[in-house]
Amino acid sequence: MTVAVYHPLEETTRWWVDALTELLPGWQVAAMDEIADPARVDYAVVWRPRPGALARCPNLRAIVSIGAGIDHVLADPALPRGVPIIRTVGRDLTQRMREYVALHVLRHHRDMPRQLQAQRERDWHAVVVPVAPRRSVGVMGLGNLGAAAARTLAGLGFATRGWARTQKSLDGVEVFAGPDRLDAFLDGCEILVNLLPLTRDTSGILDARLFGRLAEGACVINCARGAHLVDADLFAALDSGRIKQATLDVFHEEPLPADSPFWDHPAITVTPHIASRIDAATGGKLIAANLREFERTGSCPDLADAARGY
Amino acid sequence: MTVAVYHPLEETTRWWVDALTELLPGWQVAAMDEIADPARVDYAVVWRPRPGALARCPNLRAIVSIGAGIDHVLADPALPRGVPIIRTVGRDLTQRMREYVALHVLRHHRDMPRQLQAQRERDWHAVVVPVAPRRSVGVMGLGNLGAAAARTLAGLGFATRGWARTQKSLDGVEVFAGPDRLDAFLDGCEILVNLLPLTRDTSGILDARLFGRLAEGACVINCARGAHLVDADLFAALDSGRIKQATLDVFHEEPLPADSPFWDHPAITVTPHIASRIDAATGGKLIAANLREFERTGSCPDLADAARGY
Repeated sequence: MTVAVYHPLEETTRWWVDALTELLPGWQVAAMDEIADPARVDYAVVWRPRPGALARCPNLRAIVSIGAGIDHVLADPALPRGVPIIRTVGRDLTQRMREYVALHVLRHHRDMPRQLQAQRERDWHAVVVPVAPRRSVGVMGLGNLGAAAARTLAGLGFATRGWARTQKSLDGVEVFAGPDRLDAFLDGCEILVNLLPLTRDTSGILDARLFGRLAEGACVINCARGAHLVDADLFAALDSGRIKQATLDVFHEEPLPADSPFWDHPAITVTPHIASRIDAATGGKLIAANLREFERTGSCPDLADAARGY
Repeated sequence: MTVAVYHPLEETTRWWVDALTELLPGWQVAAMDEIADPARVDYAVVWRPRPGALARCPNLRAIVSIGAGIDHVLADPALPRGVPIIRTVGRDLTQRMREYVALHVLRHHRDMPRQLQAQRERDWHAVVVPVAPRRSVGVMGLGNLGAAAARTLAGLGFATRGWARTQKSLDGVEVFAGPDRLDAFLDGCEILVNLLPLTRDTSGILDARLFGRLAEGACVINCARGAHLVDADLFAALDSGRIKQATLDVFHEEPLPADSPFWDHPAITVTPHIASRIDAATGGKLIAANLREFERTGSCPDLADAARGY
């Protein structure tokens, strides 16, 4: 079997080639750019593949996304139709997302930015906040990552609600299903966490209209995709005070350009797409196991639904 | 019944007098300093009472601590012996402590101080950290608050250990009991949370010897009492890098004096004794309920053990 690897950072491509070579004895693993005959490629392991690159491989059996989302693969207009796409999910990915969401919801809940400001001013000033059961937190998207995040927030004691395409049952989480229930979900929500998949329906969903439905002075955490957010609407909502603080892990352009106004906006926390990331120690094992299973059975549990978009 | 209230801040004393007057119809509630005849005082509700003030009340039936700790009452050398002391604990207090511990452990775990520094430098630099199950976190003290904190950390996925005077069983928490097991508890611990009661045995326990037993570059969170910490030993451990970061909610002197070196040490986060605090909405109800129960039965579940010190 021949596996072609592509990641925009050459150094990362190299890392994946080495890791998968070791984990898949007997398979040929190489950087996509170094494979002379694309007809030999059986599997492609990719992050943000160059448009058209996958179409040049006529015998591709499956595409592996180095990550939970497949939007970066579907973004290729020349993507060969019907080739199965395998997501990379796993306990570590879910664990890291739970940590990130818990940390940033708690930071906003206890207003750490203001508390740190008080420290800088040597001001023994207690920021008084309600107790978590009186704080309404909402998670948009209840897939693997969203459901784990919502459960974690409920476990921490927050009044937790979730919004999903279809009805689900999650202990301690009030679930709102479908577009008709979006406004009911947003109404009174004080801290909003976005973990939706990026699809045509959800692109730009974090806009002025949505911000206007949240509780006055709400906080917004985006740890899904940059394209979920209408940047200008967020700046306007922060400047008017409609939204108090935002934490952004994802951006339209990544790495975030040095001249982006996100970097030094006083009400924005920027993190470099680290909410959840494939752990070097286990990511390779997950991908190797999925490839072996797909090769043996023609399927695997982490297969995405390209028509649905995630 | 006559209730005398004392808090070092006159405004806070006033608040408690008003709240308890409303919650205890038929009882006389007044500021301790405004009660002409101390012999009339049946109950004293206090925070950091002035030494000798309680001894002037010959008919005191019980002392209520406005908080979970009673060290501030026991610190009075003239404290009348044998008068029962009632702690104020409750769901809100425990809930707030869980939030604080989860927030600050996660902040250190994900190295938010360094991540925020990267943002200031417009540096798209991912701080790589292990996943929580590979992060060793220890909680000293497994009373109401400590046990709740340890359970919460285990629920977030951390490799959690606890240290207590006597053996306890807590799901997902490796418990070390007694002074002989302290070093085993500290060995390899990367984030340490102190929630011990302040007693003769625990005063100054956070010292150079203890810091030297933790993992290299460990973080320390003190949300118990300022007197647990040997300040100079912490500064030395931070300056040598033995300890990487500390979060302090409690201090030898509170409010922390404006000239304290804690305020602007780059590796120290200061919070103004807010880890857990009696919530205005429910604190009065807890104290009123305890007073009524004690008056009716001569006891209540929140009675402290003065001989043990907590």
